[in-house]
Amino acid sequence: MARIVMKFGGTSMAGIERIRLVARQVKREWQAGHQVAVVVSAMSGETDRLVNFCREASPLYDAREYDVVVASGEQVTTGLLAIALQAIGVPARSWLGWQLPIRTSEAHAAARIIDIDTAAMDESLARGEVAVIPGFQGQGADGRITTLGRGGSDTSAVAVAAAMKADRCDIYTDVDGVYTTDPRIVPRARKIPRITYEEMLELASVGAKVLQTRSVGLAMKERVRVQVLSSFGDPDLPPTPGTLVVGEDEIGDENVESQLITGIAYDRNEAKITLTAVPDRPGAVATIFAPLSEANINVDMIVQNVAHGTGSTDVTFTVPGAELARSIDVLEKAQATIGYAALVPNTEVCKISVVGVGMRSHAGVAATMFEALAARGINILAITTSEIKVSVLIHEDYTELAVRVLHTAYGLDAEDAA
Amino acid sequence: MARIVMKFGGTSMAGIERIRLVARQVKREWQAGHQVAVVVSAMSGETDRLVNFCREASPLYDAREYDVVVASGEQVTTGLLAIALQAIGVPARSWLGWQLPIRTSEAHAAARIIDIDTAAMDESLARGEVAVIPGFQGQGADGRITTLGRGGSDTSAVAVAAAMKADRCDIYTDVDGVYTTDPRIVPRARKIPRITYEEMLELASVGAKVLQTRSVGLAMKERVRVQVLSSFGDPDLPPTPGTLVVGEDEIGDENVESQLITGIAYDRNEAKITLTAVPDRPGAVATIFAPLSEANINVDMIVQNVAHGTGSTDVTFTVPGAELARSIDVLEKAQATIGYAALVPNTEVCKISVVGVGMRSHAGVAATMFEALAARGINILAITTSEIKVSVLIHEDYTELAVRVLHTAYGLDAEDAA
Repeated sequence: MARIVMKFGGTSMAGIERIRLVARQVKREWQAGHQVAVVVSAMSGETDRLVNFCREASPLYDAREYDVVVASGEQVTTGLLAIALQAIGVPARSWLGWQLPIRTSEAHAAARIIDIDTAAMDESLARGEVAVIPGFQGQGADGRITTLGRGGSDTSAVAVAAAMKADRCDIYTDVDGVYTTDPRIVPRARKIPRITYEEMLELASVGAKVLQTRSVGLAMKERVRVQVLSSFGDPDLPPTPGTLVVGEDEIGDENVESQLITGIAYDRNEAKITLTAVPDRPGAVATIFAPLSEANINVDMIVQNVAHGTGSTDVTFTVPGAELARSIDVLEKAQATIGYAALVPNTEVCKISVVGVGMRSHAGVAATMFEALAARGINILAITTSEIKVSVLIHEDYTELAVRVLHTAYGLDAEDAA
Repeated sequence: MARIVMKFGGTSMAGIERIRLVARQVKREWQAGHQVAVVVSAMSGETDRLVNFCREASPLYDAREYDVVVASGEQVTTGLLAIALQAIGVPARSWLGWQLPIRTSEAHAAARIIDIDTAAMDESLARGEVAVIPGFQGQGADGRITTLGRGGSDTSAVAVAAAMKADRCDIYTDVDGVYTTDPRIVPRARKIPRITYEEMLELASVGAKVLQTRSVGLAMKERVRVQVLSSFGDPDLPPTPGTLVVGEDEIGDENVESQLITGIAYDRNEAKITLTAVPDRPGAVATIFAPLSEANINVDMIVQNVAHGTGSTDVTFTVPGAELARSIDVLEKAQATIGYAALVPNTEVCKISVVGVGMRSHAGVAATMFEALAARGINILAITTSEIKVSVLIHEDYTELAVRVLHTAYGLDAEDAA
């Protein structure tokens, strides 16, 4: 007997027919003798509908009331799944965020989970009942409903798994696992059987939208074994294994050694800003990034080209595309302080990242990347690296070509499809 | 300064534009210096949508999970009205059923309110905040969400008014008050300025669907002054006075004396059953009504025609139209015990009732009714009376004629329209 959490997203909960299929998947695990808690999203489209109601009612809505409104989406699917489970003979009951409770911060609409009291739920599980829990919601110390911010249901699932010391947290999605890169770009992309939390974090944050970044961070901190797998298989048969996200100790040394790169990601949602003729003096860079930081804008890649002899320099950096307008506004207001000549924005860029814990013990990963791109005439606009990642910024027109070239260069192409 | 409860139904809450109008009506009372609690229904159509989800998920749904699902409708409108109020400068906050809490029985999907803890809400009201409360929902002793059964929001409003010792409970609806009869049948029908709880109960239960019967019973028990008024006036102007439902002491003696009949109601949802040749012996009637009572079927009017010398009798009675099929089933199973010859059902009937506390001190009310109907050739199939009501059963084809004739006979026609 294992204790497992199963999480189903909005697509899986969209309508009663799909909820019935989810119920059969849950029954399969319950019949195998496991203790099962299920975390569910709202029906797909429902959260958008509710958010729009709030915006219509007032663009400056009170986040506490917004939470009252939008949390109802998961409340509905929670009750319906409990009913659908009972209909096929599985004892089940719902546990709303305020009923467990799932205690969160009071940052309404963007709350963080503090802890989850599973005492009552554990008794219910021990009696053989399935627990159905709404994702995305909790309760603040003020006693009011909170929500975790969009996409928070993965985080709820991992937090529930941690609190109930689950053996595994299965995230059922519309893909059947994490791939070496986007299969729409590289048909030879392979499903990765096991990936470390660190790698998954890097892949998630650079555009492989399988798991919410925040949920992976929490899983790493709490050592929750997460499995990503498809929700669209035959609900009555054991599911095809997906990708297991685990600690490095579970990967095995030979895997780490043999596999230089685990995956390749791309992110088109970056924007490049170049400030020309910034005075080349100590502290100049601080005058650029301090106001951006104050405005809560995350700066990612930074390149500084010192033009010797002129006393000035061009500074290039990237910000999230959605923050470009706000960044320009902040920088224009600070023009006198910074003293740049011109601000040149560019949204036609893409960030390509190669990720793998194996690169820690191998030199030459970056060199392979630069050579492979250069051989195809792809110009690199900026570079950043971390212990397990190398990212480059290129013109967005070269995105697919760059991903394919690197996938082959690092030996990731599937053999059967070769 | 008064303490008032304002209640808005599903039509008034159907969409953000209407919720904004409701907010302006609430602001008007708040600006007048009153302490205001608002009780709201779900958007019109929403509860049906949620109920259908539950039925689709399982016809035999668990009422506890049904409550989780359907209570979400009022949760949404509660949050949205709080946002809309804040948007026009009115401090407001939502109080969900489990937050006050509104304590109910554990009869899920048909719970009764036990008590409401208004301590925290009272502090909020004293700070000048408007309280927004979802109708229809509460919390059982099991800690889970309960609902009061369909149309329960009027009852919620009256219960909140009783708990907070409100000076008045204003029920905003799509009609502007209680009329002497249905204005669609009698254009000369007049709005009744004041009506007693007892009269309103009789009118509500015989088909004048302005207020839920249950809410009137609670208002009478708790002595809550209820006003029925239109939600469609100019939201920024004082509303046109509607109908005040109060104790007899507030009506004034001269009103009671001068007004013989307060209103005339009709109810087409009755069905007549005649059992022929029932043995005329002691206890025979009990063999008919005991099984109906066991099946929870309410029998209303009863007529027994003893045919002298035959040793048998015909028994005629009415049941709610929706219970006719079940009644026939029960009676057919009991045919041997009862010993009747034939069962003759008839749904083409209508019950006409004249109601008024004034009839207590006046003889001849029933006689006036029978004479007026006889003069138009309308045959009376059955009669029941209570202290303040006389009801007759007639063929449904005569419904409108009977209502008009009686409205005139009792001097209820409006003079300005005469």
